[in-house]
Amino acid sequence: MVLLRQAVGHTLRAARTSQARTLREVARDARVSLGYLSEVERGQKEASSELLNAICNALGLNLSDVFIDVSKELKSREGVTLTVVDAA
Amino acid sequence: MVLLRQAVGHTLRAARTSQARTLREVARDARVSLGYLSEVERGQKEASSELLNAICNALGLNLSDVFIDVSKELKSREGVTLTVVDAA
Repeated sequence: MVLLRQAVGHTLRAARTSQARTLREVARDARVSLGYLSEVERGQKEASSELLNAICNALGLNLSDVFIDVSKELKSREGVTLTVVDAA
Repeated sequence: MVLLRQAVGHTLRAARTSQARTLREVARDARVSLGYLSEVERGQKEASSELLNAICNALGLNLSDVFIDVSKELKSREGVTLTVVDAA
């Protein structure tokens, strides 16, 4: 079963590592504990909507753009490739 | 502040009403309480990943397709129109 929190965690971790930032840095900027962020990234904890916004802000990303990537990740886990165009 | 649970609730409610189904019917099929589904649809409660899957299944929708609509809803709330093509 494909779980949303796993796709969210994978997407947030990919965004963070693409910025070459540590868990500690992003957790500090988002004002969440390092353990919380780590559990969210590993898909072990559901992020609340408010803390998800804080994490996205810390990463400099729009919530909507993160969820386009989450949709792609979900599609990928369902074996489908998703192309998004004209998002401006 | 745009909150994920509000976009999820809006999207799930739109899917259910487009199928002309009641809260009671979908809650029964998803094996969640009517009150829980109602709170999720109103954006007042965070749906767990497992119950989100149960609700999507009850609606006959893929989780990924629901989250494409959630992404569109988030973009809309941020003032942007999102077009998704080639999702097959």
